[in-house]
Amino acid sequence: MSLTVELLATGDELLTGQVVDTNSPWLMDRLWDAGVMVRRKTLVGDDRTALEAALRETIGRADLVVMSGGLGPTEDDLTAECVARVLGVPLELHAPSLAAIEERFRRLGRPMTPNNAKQARFPRGATVHPNRWGTAPAFTVSVGQATLTCLPGVPAEYQGLAAEVVLPWVSARLGAVPAARVLKLIGIGESAADQAMRPVMDDPSWRGVRFGYRAHFPEVHLKWTVDPPDAEPRAAAIEAAVRAIFGEAVWGGGKEELAALVVARLTARGQKVALAESCTGGLLASLLTAVPGASAVLDLGVVAYADAVKADVLGVPGALLAAHGAVSEPVARAMAEGVRRAGQATWGIGITGIAGPTGGTPAKPVGTVHLALAGPGGTQAVARLYRWGRERVRVAAAFEALDLLRRALEHTP
Amino acid sequence: MSLTVELLATGDELLTGQVVDTNSPWLMDRLWDAGVMVRRKTLVGDDRTALEAALRETIGRADLVVMSGGLGPTEDDLTAECVARVLGVPLELHAPSLAAIEERFRRLGRPMTPNNAKQARFPRGATVHPNRWGTAPAFTVSVGQATLTCLPGVPAEYQGLAAEVVLPWVSARLGAVPAARVLKLIGIGESAADQAMRPVMDDPSWRGVRFGYRAHFPEVHLKWTVDPPDAEPRAAAIEAAVRAIFGEAVWGGGKEELAALVVARLTARGQKVALAESCTGGLLASLLTAVPGASAVLDLGVVAYADAVKADVLGVPGALLAAHGAVSEPVARAMAEGVRRAGQATWGIGITGIAGPTGGTPAKPVGTVHLALAGPGGTQAVARLYRWGRERVRVAAAFEALDLLRRALEHTP
Repeated sequence: MSLTVELLATGDELLTGQVVDTNSPWLMDRLWDAGVMVRRKTLVGDDRTALEAALRETIGRADLVVMSGGLGPTEDDLTAECVARVLGVPLELHAPSLAAIEERFRRLGRPMTPNNAKQARFPRGATVHPNRWGTAPAFTVSVGQATLTCLPGVPAEYQGLAAEVVLPWVSARLGAVPAARVLKLIGIGESAADQAMRPVMDDPSWRGVRFGYRAHFPEVHLKWTVDPPDAEPRAAAIEAAVRAIFGEAVWGGGKEELAALVVARLTARGQKVALAESCTGGLLASLLTAVPGASAVLDLGVVAYADAVKADVLGVPGALLAAHGAVSEPVARAMAEGVRRAGQATWGIGITGIAGPTGGTPAKPVGTVHLALAGPGGTQAVARLYRWGRERVRVAAAFEALDLLRRALEHTP
Repeated sequence: MSLTVELLATGDELLTGQVVDTNSPWLMDRLWDAGVMVRRKTLVGDDRTALEAALRETIGRADLVVMSGGLGPTEDDLTAECVARVLGVPLELHAPSLAAIEERFRRLGRPMTPNNAKQARFPRGATVHPNRWGTAPAFTVSVGQATLTCLPGVPAEYQGLAAEVVLPWVSARLGAVPAARVLKLIGIGESAADQAMRPVMDDPSWRGVRFGYRAHFPEVHLKWTVDPPDAEPRAAAIEAAVRAIFGEAVWGGGKEELAALVVARLTARGQKVALAESCTGGLLASLLTAVPGASAVLDLGVVAYADAVKADVLGVPGALLAAHGAVSEPVARAMAEGVRRAGQATWGIGITGIAGPTGGTPAKPVGTVHLALAGPGGTQAVARLYRWGRERVRVAAAFEALDLLRRALEHTP
């Protein structure tokens, strides 16, 4: 069966550009996985007339309206009041919610204001959903053919309650759970990935499967959603076909992160990596150290912008720098080997390049990057010419270095 | 005069969560500066019925509708067609646009498909706006009381054309240009900033001024917009009052970035900074090296997670590490001084702390960070206890270190 879903968000801060509504894309993504494309999304301010008009319109058109915002304790928070007026019912105190709010304030040791009691008043007939992430409970009402669920706007509360209330309701109404898969690629652009995916996407066996991309520069994430029957085995068969096409460019899937994967693999082996960064300037170190537990695998990172640092701290021979220049394969190799030695690590990474916007030459244009990985089996190097601006060159180079290590770990027993 | 503005965006990718609409918040922010709060924003998919319904509704309610998306060359791009149908006029070829599109393809050396010619067809009577950032021209039509401007959805094209077409139109209609100011604070939270701002915000002299916040963790940005008459002098008087309240916590304003400011100040003095990072793990180096030209002020950064690295590379005495532990003020000072020496820099920064989620003790809980700055006048240190998760502790510590250097540069002739 099909289901018409609309999203409605309220809040002046959303209409002044002060806050970007990230809740809606979050829910849209999950509804798409569940088999529903949202029909329309509406944003209105904290204004009774505008909000009531938007409520009437959306519940007149949709099977399900998911509204967010306006459940706080202040005068600007109008949701319960406006819903009650649109339904033509009074607001009623919900004793369990009041008790929960009182209990929350007691636990936090903060005084409860009379305003907070407002958050326990709901339109008569509403089903109240306790909020385990904050103060304001959510609620659902039925209006004619439509169901209206009102969630708080705070992202953690919105997402927690949407996952607990909205998604199960949608799945129950649809009566069938699609299977969704994400595979994550690195080292291939979105249009090349799209080209390579064509045989799978055009395969008549997979008619009705929803394929999509999520660009997470410099990664490309491939996504597909398969409806029943046989959703899981069909999704798995597509995964096998996609992996066969992209091979090692698929580094993972689902919610995995590349840096966390590399940290986990190094930790499992009791190995460490040391980093010598020039053009990425600490970005690779920062990606790795953002992962909890990274201290088990990283002792030393060096940001070596100056030739003197490359020579003194990393032991890159002055003759090499003079002969090839700092942005060269021999220097990248010497940086990787030098930092591996200095850090007494199993692996050493060296990155040197020209991030721009200045510093390029005809022989070494902006975007030229040399990456090297020194390890137990010797040192390998790759050269890249990225055709983007400074920040993307740095990000691409840092991820490519991570990926070099990821591939080496896969190939080293 | 007041102006009712609505935004309308089209695109299936916006309703599946694949792409987040960042254009609308961008324009809302600038419209707010111009003196208008957007009344409503609507997102619909690439669907004739939905799009025409949304067009009819928005132009029936607003003085100005700014629409985005659906101007591309594919079958899914329905904007011109739907607008023409809503207006009851035919689509007509606009010869200058066709010539511009042909010229663009010639210049890029790419073949032009018949589909691209579609981008030169507009509803009869439309004013066409050439697109200097891409292929699809924008257009404006009048419908009854309403003006409808349709922009491409690609952010660079949307923003370029909105700045060229929409904002001047709004300013002309309003007949008066408000003055907007942004001041940027660091080292103070949003609720403390709000508290401190109360006397200004409640001052009857500034009645009608629109005050707001933009949270840019760990910074807080204060913003105010003043309507004529005397917009500029009144905005300047408020700035003086705000600066008097916050003093040195105001590090800058407008479009300035803290890292770029520090790089510019160091460059102007011909000075360099060297970095020794433990818990921030390269994040501070990465912030600085993201600024074009950072190579003039940074030669050396060291990520020193291990005690051995702190001792060997930075020359932190082993006795100090043994006596105080790696997370301590004496070690932060020794790191700053050691890296300043190793990098032969004017300034040295040392950061050591416990980012979490593990590693805390009762005496040194997660979030404990010691920062030190060594310079020509000696070494200063600050201790912090941040009460957030790992990533926020790292970001806050890196920015606080930048700010330590910013303040020292202000105080050092």
